[in-house]
Amino acid sequence: MASGLIRRHLALSLHRNVRLSAPACRYASKAAPKTDQDYDYSGPSMKTTVPGPRTQNVGAINFFCNYEESRGNYLVDVDGNRMLDLYTQISSIPIGYNHPDLLKLMSNPNNLVAPSGITRVQTMACGSCANENAYKAMFIWYRNKERGPNAPSEEELSSCMINQSPGCPELSILSFMGGFHGRTMGCLSTTHSKPIHKLDLPSFDWPIAPFPHLQYPLEEFTRENAQEEARCLEEVEDLIVRWRQKGKPVAGIVIEPIQAEGGDNHASPDFFRNLRNIARKHGCAFHVDEVQTGGGATGKFWAHEHWGLDDPADIVAFSKKMLTGGYFHKDELQADKPYRIFNTWMGDPSKNLMLAEVLNVIRTENLLEEVCRSGKALLNGLYELQARYPGMLSRARGQGTFCAIDICDDATRTSLLNKARDKGVLLGGCGSQSIRFRPALVFKEYHVHMFLNIFNDVLAQHK
Amino acid sequence: MASGLIRRHLALSLHRNVRLSAPACRYASKAAPKTDQDYDYSGPSMKTTVPGPRTQNVGAINFFCNYEESRGNYLVDVDGNRMLDLYTQISSIPIGYNHPDLLKLMSNPNNLVAPSGITRVQTMACGSCANENAYKAMFIWYRNKERGPNAPSEEELSSCMINQSPGCPELSILSFMGGFHGRTMGCLSTTHSKPIHKLDLPSFDWPIAPFPHLQYPLEEFTRENAQEEARCLEEVEDLIVRWRQKGKPVAGIVIEPIQAEGGDNHASPDFFRNLRNIARKHGCAFHVDEVQTGGGATGKFWAHEHWGLDDPADIVAFSKKMLTGGYFHKDELQADKPYRIFNTWMGDPSKNLMLAEVLNVIRTENLLEEVCRSGKALLNGLYELQARYPGMLSRARGQGTFCAIDICDDATRTSLLNKARDKGVLLGGCGSQSIRFRPALVFKEYHVHMFLNIFNDVLAQHK
Repeated sequence: MASGLIRRHLALSLHRNVRLSAPACRYASKAAPKTDQDYDYSGPSMKTTVPGPRTQNVGAINFFCNYEESRGNYLVDVDGNRMLDLYTQISSIPIGYNHPDLLKLMSNPNNLVAPSGITRVQTMACGSCANENAYKAMFIWYRNKERGPNAPSEEELSSCMINQSPGCPELSILSFMGGFHGRTMGCLSTTHSKPIHKLDLPSFDWPIAPFPHLQYPLEEFTRENAQEEARCLEEVEDLIVRWRQKGKPVAGIVIEPIQAEGGDNHASPDFFRNLRNIARKHGCAFHVDEVQTGGGATGKFWAHEHWGLDDPADIVAFSKKMLTGGYFHKDELQADKPYRIFNTWMGDPSKNLMLAEVLNVIRTENLLEEVCRSGKALLNGLYELQARYPGMLSRARGQGTFCAIDICDDATRTSLLNKARDKGVLLGGCGSQSIRFRPALVFKEYHVHMFLNIFNDVLAQHK
Repeated sequence: MASGLIRRHLALSLHRNVRLSAPACRYASKAAPKTDQDYDYSGPSMKTTVPGPRTQNVGAINFFCNYEESRGNYLVDVDGNRMLDLYTQISSIPIGYNHPDLLKLMSNPNNLVAPSGITRVQTMACGSCANENAYKAMFIWYRNKERGPNAPSEEELSSCMINQSPGCPELSILSFMGGFHGRTMGCLSTTHSKPIHKLDLPSFDWPIAPFPHLQYPLEEFTRENAQEEARCLEEVEDLIVRWRQKGKPVAGIVIEPIQAEGGDNHASPDFFRNLRNIARKHGCAFHVDEVQTGGGATGKFWAHEHWGLDDPADIVAFSKKMLTGGYFHKDELQADKPYRIFNTWMGDPSKNLMLAEVLNVIRTENLLEEVCRSGKALLNGLYELQARYPGMLSRARGQGTFCAIDICDDATRTSLLNKARDKGVLLGGCGSQSIRFRPALVFKEYHVHMFLNIFNDVLAQHK
């Protein structure tokens, strides 16, 4: 039946084409469509010219796909046009659209949780690609500012093809010692947490500022910490000036709200507000890397919401808890032409589907409130343990459940991690001698108590 | 009931811990587990020490997770140990393991389709990360060869943290003009297809060889094409020598089996076999980028299977049709220490689930045979159209359904692409004046005929 319909439709379609068109040469199809292929359509079906009225030209987009209606070899757009697809999203739809066996995994939700004051989002498949492409966006933005209304020169267009300036300019990104921003080669040039990440890999010569080394608890050392932060900010400005003089101007500054891989290093909201102002003063973009901190673990959806910035960041990168990767950015950081920032897997529907469900669960189960409650119990518990075992533990710190504590030395840390694991508690290290806590958002107060009891046992046995 | 069980288990667990351990300080949990949380476990449960007998230490792996048994805040390993997880895969399991609403999307198949002679696989989340990390693997391999049995020096370990040599050495990757290998900053230094990809972005100064510019059909121009390929190979050797003299030795050579973004440029099996030999002769790794060609479109699962290599490639990168990204590699390209090559999303179960289903469909529906049949019909159809419209079409070429044809000029190409789209056929451009065909693997012979009829109409109208 379906097969009969398809043949009739095909015949009509051939007939229509014959009327429209020129001479002969009709391919009569010998291989008739199989009935088990009924997730495929029977042929193209155009309702409007493309782009149609429901489609707008935005950036790299020619038309909007209707992934729900697309089937097999046919892409359907939002205007209802059905197109035989010989391009398949640059060859990335291996068994056609909505193959029945994949159907249940596909969808296309479009709601993300944008940070306040930043309206645009660019998705990518992982945290490294998020930061890497954010750097690209900052370089493009910086050169377009310098270029003004002029188009790129012939010399720029030809020199960039062979990796040479002026087309590939010697711009830089300022990062902080102890930072971790990913493992692709742009990101790696801003990563400075462990030699193992960087050894043997070519790198760009970009400036590296010191990150404040604060004393904890923060509220007991406000004067000392303010001095340390002022020293670091001064160094940042000095580096920006020196790298400009070297002919490698700083296009952007990248920083984590809490340096995670580097040892859970905190800085004050005041430090970040001042850094944001320095970036603006020197014409550098300000990029907040929330790959580790974003998604709720600090008790706010974005850790930088704790700062109270007057002027939002230019770029906020995310991944991990967000399941997909990408970055939010201000309008002016939008690349001026399509395909300057692009990846096959951006907007990956399977990832978006899962993220939508995660956001839904966070809302309906009030998980940010739970994180604040659990985080308070966790940090208070760590303070108590630190008071009880002062020779072994120090510098308990955290925001929400994003907590850490320092261990007297690396060997003791390894031993504590292994003993906790043998008692059924998984912990991770960071920096040279810290243990970091990264529970899921469903980690409740009673889980905290369970953990503290076990960790106390481990510490008591070790004593 | 469930809640009662959980409380009893918790009490037993606390009791056990009390016996094991030292003094007081028990946290009695006020927030009792909710019954709607029954996808969570009631507490840790350890069966063996970790790593247990079913677990082996391989690379960056401490133990193997049993994702099917893991629930909520508890990770279960293959030895049946259940651990309260405060690390959550470096903070990437936002709402716990196997949340009921995500459960149906998760699984962990482990069978990929390795190219002959290459046994190991490293997964990544996209094609750019696949190539980027493959380059890193080649740099690490190259430096370890030079270092021999010696450990990295103190100077290497400290200099790499600030992006300087000798820790970050000036090594290079040799690529080909017209190649496209991705958009992260390492990949971009080997991408040379269009200025729009590279303009304004800092780049490494790495050597670029000419890719053979062949005349089609290949079988009519064997002598001319052989000369052209010999010229390019000579230039490759020359560049390797010159870059070594410049102090930027070539650690690896990267090439696509068919240059896709660059215009569907083919080369002979002989060319690739010779290139592989040159790589070995000069101590460079040989990296075949199958991101676009892998997965079946050329009629073989891997396009380089058409070459008949005696000595397999060192690295074969994939993504696109494979749904996830990554690279296969020989044993010696395995990084010597864990965490030198790493990404949060490697081995992503949701992607593996989809890939396993895709591979299953390719097998059960004999899609490689279908591709050979459809590809033959497509290429023969293109030859016929090219004979009919010699002023407009030339250089029809292809392998399987991975086909392309040249159009007389860019304006005509744009017009043909738009007119085909208006008749419901999606095509893509590549290079300066080619149209490329990238249908799904379920594109059957009757789809080819449907396409050829419509394309013939478009060409006839345009005439």
